Amino acid sequence: MAIITLTTDFGTADGYVGAMKGVIAERAPGATVIDVTHDVPPQDVAAAAFALAQAAPHFPSGSIHVVVVDPGVGGPRREVILEDRGQLFVGPDNGVFSLVAPSVRQGWQIVSPDFRRDEVSPTFHGRDIFAPAAARLAAGAAPSAAGPLVTLEAALAPRPLLMSHAGLQVTGHVVHVDRFGNLVTDIPADALPRGGRVRIGSIEIPAIHTTYANVAKGETVAYVGSSGTLEVGVRDGSAHEALTLGRGAPVLVLST
Amino acid sequence: MAIITLTTDFGTADGYVGAMKGVIAERAPGATVIDVTHDVPPQDVAAAAFALAQAAPHFPSGSIHVVVVDPGVGGPRREVILEDRGQLFVGPDNGVFSLVAPSVRQGWQIVSPDFRRDEVSPTFHGRDIFAPAAARLAAGAAPSAAGPLVTLEAALAPRPLLMSHAGLQVTGHVVHVDRFGNLVTDIPADALPRGGRVRIGSIEIPAIHTTYANVAKGETVAYVGSSGTLEVGVRDGSAHEALTLGRGAPVLVLST
Amino acid sequence: MAIITLTTDFGTADGYVGAMKGVIAERAPGATVIDVTHDVPPQDVAAAAFALAQAAPHFPSGSIHVVVVDPGVGGPRREVILEDRGQLFVGPDNGVFSLVAPSVRQGWQIVSPDFRRDEVSPTFHGRDIFAPAAARLAAGAAPSAAGPLVTLEAALAPRPLLMSHAGLQVTGHVVHVDRFGNLVTDIPADALPRGGRVRIGSIEIPAIHTTYANVAKGETVAYVGSSGTLEVGVRDGSAHEALTLGRGAPVLVLST
Repeated sequence: MAIITLTTDFGTADGYVGAMKGVIAERAPGATVIDVTHDVPPQDVAAAAFALAQAAPHFPSGSIHVVVVDPGVGGPRREVILEDRGQLFVGPDNGVFSLVAPSVRQGWQIVSPDFRRDEVSPTFHGRDIFAPAAARLAAGAAPSAAGPLVTLEAALAPRPLLMSHAGLQVTGHVVHVDRFGNLVTDIPADALPRGGRVRIGSIEIPAIHTTYANVAKGETVAYVGSSGTLEVGVRDGSAHEALTLGRGAPVLVLST
Repeated sequence: MAIITLTTDFGTADGYVGAMKGVIAERAPGATVIDVTHDVPPQDVAAAAFALAQAAPHFPSGSIHVVVVDPGVGGPRREVILEDRGQLFVGPDNGVFSLVAPSVRQGWQIVSPDFRRDEVSPTFHGRDIFAPAAARLAAGAAPSAAGPLVTLEAALAPRPLLMSHAGLQVTGHVVHVDRFGNLVTDIPADALPRGGRVRIGSIEIPAIHTTYANVAKGETVAYVGSSGTLEVGVRDGSAHEALTLGRGAPVLVLST
Repeated sequence: MAIITLTTDFGTADGYVGAMKGVIAERAPGATVIDVTHDVPPQDVAAAAFALAQAAPHFPSGSIHVVVVDPGVGGPRREVILEDRGQLFVGPDNGVFSLVAPSVRQGWQIVSPDFRRDEVSPTFHGRDIFAPAAARLAAGAAPSAAGPLVTLEAALAPRPLLMSHAGLQVTGHVVHVDRFGNLVTDIPADALPRGGRVRIGSIEIPAIHTTYANVAKGETVAYVGSSGTLEVGVRDGSAHEALTLGRGAPVLVLST
C-alpha cells in the first residue's frame, strides 16, 4: 500500500486540500495519504522545502511526496517527478526539492495524459496534475512513464557557510523559525568549533548545550536541534520574540 | 472500504474532532476518514457549503460526506442524510448541502437508534448522531434505514445573477475569499460576456486572463478559477487586502 | 489494524508532525494514524490533558494514544507507557494522562532499544522515543517489554470542588475555553444542585438549560456540555469574550 504525503500552502479552511484528496482517493483507492503540512506561509518555497526536508527522510522507501507551493502556477515553470534514495517527489520545478534532494539534477516532466486530469485548470495544478501524478505512481506506474527526463531549472540558493581556515569560527544563518520560536540555523553539528560561543543579534551565548533543560526558565540556550543543526531557543519561551530575530539573521560561532 | 469525509467548524485545538474520529473508528473500523476542513469560521454555514462543494465532487462514488456546522444544534432543525450522484451527505438540515447538491429536495431523517449513540448530548450531534450515522452507512446500511424520507426545510439562497437580455453584461457577487486572498465569484465561465471587462469595488480590470502568471507582480488579475467561476486575484499578493473587498461584494462583467 | 492517535503542541506548519508520521509508517506500516490535535498551546500540559480526555474514551479498545506536550524534554522526567481500560497511552511522565486515566499510578518506563530510535535527539522525543514506542506497540509488543514498571511522578492537581454539606451549592472552575468561546467547567452534571442558578464573573444565570437553542441570540446560557460537565456559553456568540473570563475562573452554582 503506497504512501502519499502532502505539503502545501493551501491552509485548511478552503476545500483545496479536500479536492486533492478526492482525486487521489478516486484514482488510487489503496493509497495512504499523510499530511506533512498545509500551513506553509503562502508561496513560501523555502519554508516548504524546509518542512519537507524535516519530514521526508523518516518515511519508508517507496513513499511519494507531493509539494504544492507554486507561485508560478500556469506560467512556464515545469511540473516534475524526482527520485532520490528510493523515494519519489512530485511538484513544480521551482527549487522546492533542493533541500530534501540536493544532489538530484534531473526529473521527469509530467506530460503524459495518464498523469493529469483531462481538464487542467491554469491555477490549480495540485488537483489537476500533481495529485493525479502521485496517484498514478501509487498505482504502480514508473516515473519515466510521466514524460521525458529533463534537467531541473530551479534550486534554492542557500547562503554559504563562512568558515575560517583554522576552523575557529563559522558564520551561518537562521533558516527557519518553528512554532516554539526556536531559531533553526544552517550550521551542522560537525561544523561547530570545539567549545563554541554563539553570537546572534546583540547577544553572546557562552556555550552550546544539549537541550533546553540545561538552562533556567527564560534563559537563552544554544543546542544542536533535531535536524542536526545549531538552534537557539529560550527555555519555556520564544527566542524569536525575545531576540526579535527571524529567518535570514546571521549567526556566528566562535571557538573559545 | 468506505470513505468518510469531515467538514466542521470545530477547529483543531479541542478534542471534538478526535471524539468524532473515535466514534467512527469504533463503529466502522475499516472506513477511511479524510478531513476536508475543520477551520470553517464558527457557525458559518455558507462557508462550509462552499468548501464542501469544492471538494466533494472529486471523491469517488460511495463516499460519505459529514458536515457539522450547526448553529441550531439542539433546536428544531432536523438531522438528515441526502443522496446525490452516488454520494451520501450527512448533517443538519440547515442548507449546508445546497451548493454541493442543489437539486436535492428530500433526505432521510436520522431517527433510528442504530444511527445514533445511546445517549445524545444536546450540544454535540457531530459525535452523537452524525458520526454514528456515517459509520452505519460505511458499514453498509441503506440511508433509508435511518428514518423517514422528509422534504428539506432549509436552503442557502444565493443572490441571483443579473444578466442583460443581450448577454452584454452580468452582475454577480463574491461568494468566498480563499487563503491567498483571491475573491471567488458566483459567475460561471459560460455566463461571461465575450471579451469582458470586470468592475469590482472602485476598479476596472480590462480583460479576463487565464492565470496569475499573465500579469506582473502586484497587478490585479481576473480569471476563471479552479471552481469554474470568475475570480479576482493579485499576483503574488492578496486581492482581499488590496481591494479591501470580501464576501458579498458585487462584481460586474461588461462586454467590450 | 492498530490505531495510533497523536496529540501534540507542534502546530502544523513545521515538519515535526510529518517526521513522527514517517517514523510510524516505517515501523508499523499497517497502523492507522489519527490526529487528535497538534494545536495544543505550546507547552500547555493541562490543555493537552483536556483534549485527550475528550477524545480518547470514544476510541476502540486497543487504541494507542501518543501525547507529546513536553516542556521537560531532555531533562529528568521519564518517558512512559500507561494502560487503562484496554487502551495504551505513550508520552512524558508530566501529568498529561491524569485526566484521561486518573486512577492509573504506574507505567512502564521506555528504556528498551526496541522502543526507541538508535539516535535520540535531546529535544525531539516525539520522533525518537514516543513514535517508535507506539509503532512497536502497534506491531504487537507488550508494554511491559518497554522497560520496568515505575510509579508515576507527576499528576495534574485539579482544584477541588467545594460543595456545601446540604448539597445546596457547589464551587468549581473553568477548566477549558473551546473554539466557540464556551467556558467548560469541572462541575459534573450529577453534582449540580437541583434547579440551580449559576454565578460566574459578575453575572448570575437564573437557570440551567439543555442547549443554546433554549435562549435567544446573544444571551448567556448555562447547560451540561458534551463532556458531562457544566458549561457557560453565549448563543451565536462567545462567552469567553462576552464575560472576559477564561481558564481558572471560579463558578458557583446555588440551589434555588
